[in-house]
Amino acid sequence: MSESAVLLISCPDQRGLVARVSGLLYEMGANILHADQHQDHVHGQFFMRVEWALRAPAHGAAGGASLEESFDLDAFKKKFAPMADELQMQWRLASSAQPLRVALFCSQYLHCMADLLHRWRTGELACEIPVIVSNHRAVENLARYYDVPFEYLPMNASNKAETEARQRDLLAAHKVDLVVLARYMQILSPAFIERYPRSIINVHHSFLPAFTGAKPYHAAYARGVKLIGATSHYVTEVLDDGPIIEQDVARISHRDQVEDLVERGRDLERMVLSRAVRWHIDRRILCYGNKTVVFD
Amino acid sequence: MSESAVLLISCPDQRGLVARVSGLLYEMGANILHADQHQDHVHGQFFMRVEWALRAPAHGAAGGASLEESFDLDAFKKKFAPMADELQMQWRLASSAQPLRVALFCSQYLHCMADLLHRWRTGELACEIPVIVSNHRAVENLARYYDVPFEYLPMNASNKAETEARQRDLLAAHKVDLVVLARYMQILSPAFIERYPRSIINVHHSFLPAFTGAKPYHAAYARGVKLIGATSHYVTEVLDDGPIIEQDVARISHRDQVEDLVERGRDLERMVLSRAVRWHIDRRILCYGNKTVVFD
Amino acid sequence: MSESAVLLISCPDQRGLVARVSGLLYEMGANILHADQHQDHVHGQFFMRVEWALRAPAHGAAGGASLEESFDLDAFKKKFAPMADELQMQWRLASSAQPLRVALFCSQYLHCMADLLHRWRTGELACEIPVIVSNHRAVENLARYYDVPFEYLPMNASNKAETEARQRDLLAAHKVDLVVLARYMQILSPAFIERYPRSIINVHHSFLPAFTGAKPYHAAYARGVKLIGATSHYVTEVLDDGPIIEQDVARISHRDQVEDLVERGRDLERMVLSRAVRWHIDRRILCYGNKTVVFD
Amino acid sequence: MSESAVLLISCPDQRGLVARVSGLLYEMGANILHADQHQDHVHGQFFMRVEWALRAPAHGAAGGASLEESFDLDAFKKKFAPMADELQMQWRLASSAQPLRVALFCSQYLHCMADLLHRWRTGELACEIPVIVSNHRAVENLARYYDVPFEYLPMNASNKAETEARQRDLLAAHKVDLVVLARYMQILSPAFIERYPRSIINVHHSFLPAFTGAKPYHAAYARGVKLIGATSHYVTEVLDDGPIIEQDVARISHRDQVEDLVERGRDLERMVLSRAVRWHIDRRILCYGNKTVVFD
Repeated sequence: MSESAVLLISCPDQRGLVARVSGLLYEMGANILHADQHQDHVHGQFFMRVEWALRAPAHGAAGGASLEESFDLDAFKKKFAPMADELQMQWRLASSAQPLRVALFCSQYLHCMADLLHRWRTGELACEIPVIVSNHRAVENLARYYDVPFEYLPMNASNKAETEARQRDLLAAHKVDLVVLARYMQILSPAFIERYPRSIINVHHSFLPAFTGAKPYHAAYARGVKLIGATSHYVTEVLDDGPIIEQDVARISHRDQVEDLVERGRDLERMVLSRAVRWHIDRRILCYGNKTVVFD
Repeated sequence: MSESAVLLISCPDQRGLVARVSGLLYEMGANILHADQHQDHVHGQFFMRVEWALRAPAHGAAGGASLEESFDLDAFKKKFAPMADELQMQWRLASSAQPLRVALFCSQYLHCMADLLHRWRTGELACEIPVIVSNHRAVENLARYYDVPFEYLPMNASNKAETEARQRDLLAAHKVDLVVLARYMQILSPAFIERYPRSIINVHHSFLPAFTGAKPYHAAYARGVKLIGATSHYVTEVLDDGPIIEQDVARISHRDQVEDLVERGRDLERMVLSRAVRWHIDRRILCYGNKTVVFD
Repeated sequence: MSESAVLLISCPDQRGLVARVSGLLYEMGANILHADQHQDHVHGQFFMRVEWALRAPAHGAAGGASLEESFDLDAFKKKFAPMADELQMQWRLASSAQPLRVALFCSQYLHCMADLLHRWRTGELACEIPVIVSNHRAVENLARYYDVPFEYLPMNASNKAETEARQRDLLAAHKVDLVVLARYMQILSPAFIERYPRSIINVHHSFLPAFTGAKPYHAAYARGVKLIGATSHYVTEVLDDGPIIEQDVARISHRDQVEDLVERGRDLERMVLSRAVRWHIDRRILCYGNKTVVFD
Repeated sequence: MSESAVLLISCPDQRGLVARVSGLLYEMGANILHADQHQDHVHGQFFMRVEWALRAPAHGAAGGASLEESFDLDAFKKKFAPMADELQMQWRLASSAQPLRVALFCSQYLHCMADLLHRWRTGELACEIPVIVSNHRAVENLARYYDVPFEYLPMNASNKAETEARQRDLLAAHKVDLVVLARYMQILSPAFIERYPRSIINVHHSFLPAFTGAKPYHAAYARGVKLIGATSHYVTEVLDDGPIIEQDVARISHRDQVEDLVERGRDLERMVLSRAVRWHIDRRILCYGNKTVVFD
């Protein structure tokens, strides 16, 4: 892939928004790769994602032509900022040349971790993974296999605050942009969550809002549901209540015991978590209220 | 289809149950068409469904051979009853020669009703439909088109008890075995429900146990879920809490407004309700605790 | 719904297309409801769908303000046409004030027909249905129930050409825009198809390109597949080969006989055909080569 | 899990088969864990799978009671064999104490291999994996991480026969029962296939029978399908034509290029291949004709 820039916009809806944004990009010579927008007519809100080439190959060009294909991102920012102010836009501009830095947290179950690391190695996840953190040693070999630094931070009732402080230091030291809780079985403190607004992704092993809290597969079994689910979402202060990013379900039957639900659930958890991480690092997600817009 | 008998059994698990039931059927010359069993090892419970021919064509037989193919259901009952007592079996024996009598209830939304009636006409639902009951006139033309007697019983705050009494009289007069609530928007009284244990099927327009109660699509929209669902279940005294028979889901996105959820939900409701009715009248469902075994 | 206009564009990709189209719409005061575009980087092709209000309610406006909200579609056309020429656009502009006129064809199986008519009555399909055509009388009662004129045109080996001529006259007399083959079991002649390019939608009861031709459920059963499918597509001269609009599948098992496949397939056929018709009449489909772009 | 035995039976259908098999098991004191049967009424064929405990815990028993719970498999075999002969049964009897020995083959793509090994390590796949074989070195690190012997057998036009001979020797030396082609891109010779009847499982990256042969994702893209699929099947002499074990599909849209299909397809391939391997080693699959019965 050649380098590209992504602009994410959220603002009050009004006429001419697409015209003005696309007009400016055209004026500055952007070669748009993808553009998508969404209007929420109920809340009068407008959302947009535009991706354009930063250093596109100059089609059929000879000599130094490729020079003129290089897009000046700083110049764009300078022109865009006042327009954004005027239109009350919240916006983020990112370049694929600066991939997100992602920390992976887990406890003793490794299926999501193994899946994320394999996808990362394969190139499906275009991010950096500077550190893996766990309160168990189970993940150590896996971390070593993928050459990712591993930090073992055991946690118990008495050292929770202290351990979290060390976690926060680690994240700061590694300049982490996104924290992925790949079946991490500890509850984060409000202080921790506040530092990473809409930047902590969790996977919960139920179809939220059904079966929040602990042991959702046991609860699903007890209720006798015919489908089980998994949900990836941003972490907020209220447990299992943050903006939902992705959900999926699998059919079960009366033949399935709790262990079967747990096993099938693993495939669901892998899928919904890896998709959420993928979409986040590809800058496809915008939050508003307690919901997400996911541009495809 | 030729006529067949279905035996449904539920009892404490112990060795030799399949051997004894299938042994008796073999001894009496039953031509088994389908047999399925399930053991719940957690609760030590055994479940079985056997279907056999009552008047099977005598393969390659000449002359009066078909006479010997006719199965004596009463004789079987006499032999089976003491064995069932000994093994503490709860059981039901039904003959396809006596199809269930099903009453359909609805209010103003007709998509489930139209779907059930079309399937019934097509032969997918092997039951009798002696009566359609509604608190709205909307269904009248549809009932007439399918030649099913229609009873208009308007309901309001002051006549609820009286109207329910008339409903119960109607059901008794029509010898109704199963009541299907095809988007019937009134809550049945405990007295009504008690008369039809595990014999009232409702469709709820959410993925239970999420979003119980009124306006589930609005609640799903507000929560920002990525899949919506529908659930068919037996009605018990606790609202939206009875044994679940079938569930299904459909993917939605941020582009979908409440109206879109309502519209897509209609297809889900049709599917899960028609499957539940089908399975019930084909005697594929056994309840235990608050759950169902659905033999496929 | 208030009235709206839809513009569908297909053209060679180049920079500034979104800017120019959205710029013109902004300049003319369009209140855009939905806009979506797609670039096929492999073939260098650009596709766009824009929908805007024609007579939007003037929010919070007093007096005659609503007058200024009425969009001048003819004036837009005049300004847009030269731009479209310059950019080598193929385009269609449609107003919801002029719904498509759809003829439904069927043979003896009525499940798709009953489904389409019910959805139409419910308001899901915003079209007119001036005529139902069949070579069987089976659909007559249904047509009468929905108050749609029915034309019985029996077909046999000797009258095929003549009957098709009568069909074409009927379609012309009823100013039909779209022909929907709702399990119509006759093969249309190339001459017929040529008159309705990308305007005849068929449902084939398999997951194309598997199992083309007759008796696909029998073929699927013989091959031992674990999923069966259905496909809606535009009709071209090559049987079962036109641009695919929608496909869906259902899980089957070794327990399912051909009759079970046929029965489950009916639900698939209903879904994929009704979605295709819906998307066509909502002008969401663009064809290119032998494929479709379906804007959601 | 405690140890268990599985009996798989296939024979001409006749009355009393379940009674006789379950009767013998009862007589010999078997504690049946699962039993399932299927009748193909079209071909007059009967299929059965029974699983029973070999060394079950004696519920509530004191002292040496657990001794009597141990099932005598050899004694059962001696009694069962003549019955099986009489009833023309084809049968296999397996004990979980002797897990299948599985060889994994792959080429350069490792997603299926990584998935199978992770599931094996987690305990989902109750087999032994004595050897991994590849014509590429890509898998070497993964094999080492999971401590499985790796054999690098490069293959080219001139050494095909010789390399296959070495493969066969390896499989014989490792007493391999099942060969899994986890995206192995070489075509096996008829001689190889003949040695492992219904014991080579392949994954093909399309919804068979659509898109057989090479580059199925390219073919799916060119045809413009709306769903892509993957299929696991037993290998027979005819390419991509063996009995299908499992299939699954994923929705795609016009936005997806061939690379996107390849990426999404990887998840499908993992799922359908791992399920097939799981079912085979759990002895859930019976073949007849070119089809499979998969007991759930």
